[in-house]
Amino acid sequence: MLVVMKQDATDDDVKGVLARLKDANLEGHLSPGEERVVIGAVGVINDPDIRPAVGRMSGVEEVIAISRPYKLTGREFQPEDTVIDVGGVKIGDGTLTVMAGPCSIESEEHMVATACAVRDAGAQIIRGGAFKPRTSPYSFRGLGEEGLQHLATAREATGLPVITEVMSERDVEVVARYADVLQIGTRNMQNFTLLDEVGLTRKPVMLKRGLTATIDEWLLAAEYVMAKGNRDVILCERGIRTFETATRNTLDLSAIPVVKRLSHLPIISDPSHGTGHWYLVEPMARASMAVGADGLMVEVHPSPDHALSDGPQSLTFENFAELMESLAKVGEAVGHPLAPQPATALAMAGG
Amino acid sequence: MLVVMKQDATDDDVKGVLARLKDANLEGHLSPGEERVVIGAVGVINDPDIRPAVGRMSGVEEVIAISRPYKLTGREFQPEDTVIDVGGVKIGDGTLTVMAGPCSIESEEHMVATACAVRDAGAQIIRGGAFKPRTSPYSFRGLGEEGLQHLATAREATGLPVITEVMSERDVEVVARYADVLQIGTRNMQNFTLLDEVGLTRKPVMLKRGLTATIDEWLLAAEYVMAKGNRDVILCERGIRTFETATRNTLDLSAIPVVKRLSHLPIISDPSHGTGHWYLVEPMARASMAVGADGLMVEVHPSPDHALSDGPQSLTFENFAELMESLAKVGEAVGHPLAPQPATALAMAGG
Amino acid sequence: MLVVMKQDATDDDVKGVLARLKDANLEGHLSPGEERVVIGAVGVINDPDIRPAVGRMSGVEEVIAISRPYKLTGREFQPEDTVIDVGGVKIGDGTLTVMAGPCSIESEEHMVATACAVRDAGAQIIRGGAFKPRTSPYSFRGLGEEGLQHLATAREATGLPVITEVMSERDVEVVARYADVLQIGTRNMQNFTLLDEVGLTRKPVMLKRGLTATIDEWLLAAEYVMAKGNRDVILCERGIRTFETATRNTLDLSAIPVVKRLSHLPIISDPSHGTGHWYLVEPMARASMAVGADGLMVEVHPSPDHALSDGPQSLTFENFAELMESLAKVGEAVGHPLAPQPATALAMAGG
Amino acid sequence: MLVVMKQDATDDDVKGVLARLKDANLEGHLSPGEERVVIGAVGVINDPDIRPAVGRMSGVEEVIAISRPYKLTGREFQPEDTVIDVGGVKIGDGTLTVMAGPCSIESEEHMVATACAVRDAGAQIIRGGAFKPRTSPYSFRGLGEEGLQHLATAREATGLPVITEVMSERDVEVVARYADVLQIGTRNMQNFTLLDEVGLTRKPVMLKRGLTATIDEWLLAAEYVMAKGNRDVILCERGIRTFETATRNTLDLSAIPVVKRLSHLPIISDPSHGTGHWYLVEPMARASMAVGADGLMVEVHPSPDHALSDGPQSLTFENFAELMESLAKVGEAVGHPLAPQPATALAMAGG
Repeated sequence: MLVVMKQDATDDDVKGVLARLKDANLEGHLSPGEERVVIGAVGVINDPDIRPAVGRMSGVEEVIAISRPYKLTGREFQPEDTVIDVGGVKIGDGTLTVMAGPCSIESEEHMVATACAVRDAGAQIIRGGAFKPRTSPYSFRGLGEEGLQHLATAREATGLPVITEVMSERDVEVVARYADVLQIGTRNMQNFTLLDEVGLTRKPVMLKRGLTATIDEWLLAAEYVMAKGNRDVILCERGIRTFETATRNTLDLSAIPVVKRLSHLPIISDPSHGTGHWYLVEPMARASMAVGADGLMVEVHPSPDHALSDGPQSLTFENFAELMESLAKVGEAVGHPLAPQPATALAMAGG
Repeated sequence: MLVVMKQDATDDDVKGVLARLKDANLEGHLSPGEERVVIGAVGVINDPDIRPAVGRMSGVEEVIAISRPYKLTGREFQPEDTVIDVGGVKIGDGTLTVMAGPCSIESEEHMVATACAVRDAGAQIIRGGAFKPRTSPYSFRGLGEEGLQHLATAREATGLPVITEVMSERDVEVVARYADVLQIGTRNMQNFTLLDEVGLTRKPVMLKRGLTATIDEWLLAAEYVMAKGNRDVILCERGIRTFETATRNTLDLSAIPVVKRLSHLPIISDPSHGTGHWYLVEPMARASMAVGADGLMVEVHPSPDHALSDGPQSLTFENFAELMESLAKVGEAVGHPLAPQPATALAMAGG
Repeated sequence: MLVVMKQDATDDDVKGVLARLKDANLEGHLSPGEERVVIGAVGVINDPDIRPAVGRMSGVEEVIAISRPYKLTGREFQPEDTVIDVGGVKIGDGTLTVMAGPCSIESEEHMVATACAVRDAGAQIIRGGAFKPRTSPYSFRGLGEEGLQHLATAREATGLPVITEVMSERDVEVVARYADVLQIGTRNMQNFTLLDEVGLTRKPVMLKRGLTATIDEWLLAAEYVMAKGNRDVILCERGIRTFETATRNTLDLSAIPVVKRLSHLPIISDPSHGTGHWYLVEPMARASMAVGADGLMVEVHPSPDHALSDGPQSLTFENFAELMESLAKVGEAVGHPLAPQPATALAMAGG
Repeated sequence: MLVVMKQDATDDDVKGVLARLKDANLEGHLSPGEERVVIGAVGVINDPDIRPAVGRMSGVEEVIAISRPYKLTGREFQPEDTVIDVGGVKIGDGTLTVMAGPCSIESEEHMVATACAVRDAGAQIIRGGAFKPRTSPYSFRGLGEEGLQHLATAREATGLPVITEVMSERDVEVVARYADVLQIGTRNMQNFTLLDEVGLTRKPVMLKRGLTATIDEWLLAAEYVMAKGNRDVILCERGIRTFETATRNTLDLSAIPVVKRLSHLPIISDPSHGTGHWYLVEPMARASMAVGADGLMVEVHPSPDHALSDGPQSLTFENFAELMESLAKVGEAVGHPLAPQPATALAMAGG
């Protein structure tokens, strides 16, 4: 932490800052410049609130953090990549994992049909929403536990693990009973009590980036989960909000290599929510792969025109199968092949 | 709802849309243009998901909403202003209500001293945080129920009603036991299960705008609360996230007259969080008043250098007293005087 | 300038940085931390490009500027406020100057009628556009020099100074011949050759903030004008681009006190472009005044429905007269009265 | 164009709108809804300002454009892709063109050495800046015409065409004398007089997206150039400004397939400016290719630590050669191979 003093700061101002740092067990180290004094604070910062506190003191121009605010999520804490095992599917091991399925679970038949179609096309994990965050209270908000049951049926039918969103700390227990991965949605990235709660489970957590979250805030949200003891966090870039209205959000693909540099956690991309248009899903999925994503989350629907949510961004079964073929080629080119499906994985391990 | 067809849409495309609208009990009305066909959908839209569904159909270029997506919060539903009574303080009646106090409650002594100071300076409602949303899990997260007790003590000591944040649906019951107004923070604006829960209480709810929420999304979040039966919603503009880094957020004062035009709900301004710098609080508070806000939320701390949170944006007691004097003058100029304190209010009513 | 080294930086990395600083006549001052080394660079930074250059060096984590990048525009260079005299109207002296008129000049009659109406309502400076930047090449782009002649006629008719935009370095000479203040529009804030050119004139320049410019970039754009010898720069906040679509732009009123703190230059507000809706002009004009703006720029049109540009945000003569009355009251309350009109100013001086 | 009336609009309001449309040679077509009247305007809209004008009228809620505002740049005007020939290099023909070189031209030796290195690695076009837009007036602003001469020397030395930025309408003639492609920088995307001027030349123009420009605004800026008769416009996505500060800008890769859908013009990507960090250039270049870009612009410098501008985002010769190898593989995978170099092109044509 560096404390930059104002040009007209007095000696007393400087002494005040040094005393305040000492209170926090930090040693102040003066670095006199020609224009202004800078104080380096040496020691372990246990209180993250010391920075704003000093920023308010008399004669202080600015306080600059020089350490990253997160710990467990950082590469400095753990240099090697985290690899997460989800029912035999390895996420973060250099292969590309594809999670696919409908935005909302609409019926058992619908869920199972979609799950089988995406499995046949090569997906490794099935997605489907039972609890749906909707901007309007009058929109379809999901089937709830009934939906979870359909998801479990789809798991049985396909042999693939499943991921679904949990929106409320009250539902963590029931969702964890059915799901292999707990998804935290973009609107809940800073729902800290929910983060605490999923941190206490032993299920992998997929944490979507907040619509307007900086990468630092996102890693700090992951830190909430990890600080409670759950090390299996997957990050998911799903688009940020900008002034551009041609796309639903702006999928920030540069966030992927930036996160890879700062953190050891796996990171996947959601081109469906990230763009909001089905015809942008394939190009942005290919680009996500080329930029180094560990996986993709893609919305697929048997009949997108009749989807109860997010129809315009869902792929048909046919579109999805084409996408998987296209990804296989890009994967080879970038040395980042599609992950094997769990059965294959077992067969290979068994062999 | 208007359905704009593509230039090369076929007759079958148009028929498909008309059939789909009929399924949803809407009558399609053709408006042939020279360049492309436009279909107006006449009837009551019961399913908000019909719009994206049609948007996905063959031959459709775009679907345009021409009704506002919210109902109960809209001026079309209720033309006259909602006035909310909080322990004798009227919010939304043309006066300016000032809510003030520390960001976090740190101790009973600290809470009571601050509450008395802001009451003496003229504030009508006391604020103080017991449950604190913090970006880092290692920051001070509030005293919890102990903090609520200190807040209750401050209420007794001052005779003023109190407002505090509730972050979790599990805490709604306990917070509602102590507080006169339940605050929903910016990060929880779209925590829909929490919105549902506070909608079931009979306490007024103050709903902060999400960091990146459009005004429509904000009113829809208020709609969640109202749809559960709680009509007493106060909106609070607290700054949006933009590219500018000189301020913590960009306080969007134009949102205040826009909301006044669209909705009957009262709206207040939070220049402390909105700017992040104590020296910007007074000018932006004056501006909030001039633009027509129904109230202000201001952070005050006996010794901002030692605050456990948000020190740099908190006013000292002295700064706050000066602010109140300055506001009184602006209030007169714009015909929007400071609200009386509850005791005075009672005296006036009693007289 | 502070150079923060990586945790794993080697001694050679540190030596490399010290040598590079010495090349640039800066003395490196080591401040060893427990986690990483920080090097303070002491001396006068003549080369603004040294910062990115060092940022690229081996072992460097980050380079942090601790001096403001601008000089002539900064308060540290000139502590007292700049007051600019425009044909007898003082801008920046603690009064509020109102510049008003049509967006585009449409005819002599139209220009003179509007100028007289705004003068009668109390404006001090007449605005009118002869060269119009338009998003589409097919929109009305202004009358050019003919428009400037109508503006000159309006000046004669009213006795008030005039302001108009210059879009091209080629037109600077002709615009300077007619106008009392040269306006640089938001799209040209970083048209550096144009800034150089108006910096060589001896006419006051009003520099609008770029749609997406940070305050630092804006002050650096002003620095371009001042560096060429023209000290008379007026800044104009006119709204930034954000994700909100309810308003044309988001008028960033907090920029006004921030600029006042950083710079000695006067700053005015443009609520017409800042909001895009005539019914938001009055509340945001009042707020601009309350926050400390030195002036306002307001679009007025005799018949906004028929305006050739920006009709929806223009006030009628009647609306404008009401606005001026309202501003007079707020001005008294905040100790920032409306500026006298030039004739009055002369009379007062003469008296 | 659709005119949505307010719920309480009167018959006279409707008649007023119909009359106004008739003045503009448009036929109003009433589409009565249950909630409000909608008027469709049928006919050719010659005056783009009619839309805001009607928006201001009594009883009008909103005016909605249903035609795209641009013409010549649109796919509806020209369905097939535009292919531009730059000294034998075809841009937009399904291959990937790489433009590479230093941000600023620093000396003849430096320019030629860099040009040869990028040619040897496989680039098709040489870039180098002689006129540099710089945020600060005190930064290095380029060598001017001397730089153009060095660029011409590099062209001779390599046999490759060259691209360089023109910042001022005054310099268009001299830059066009030396360069094969005229680059318009991000800050000048809406410098309309400059757009007019390059539209009058017969050199291809590369138009960078403005920092905060929507895709519609960008295509309208291209329309300025095309409306003057110059059909050879290349678009360049180079990052937009968002709240994220980990990268210099946010490279909006989804803009590439969106533009491809809306326009026939070729579009390239600039991962150097788009990210601001050399280590993000390769992943984002690969992603740009995977998403369908027609080309890349990449900054390369023999010794990035000593670059006079943009060092932190420049690749070394070695990094660049690796990038080209990586791109060749991705190109094959996505069926979008690297373009041949001009000599090869000639040889192939000759063969």
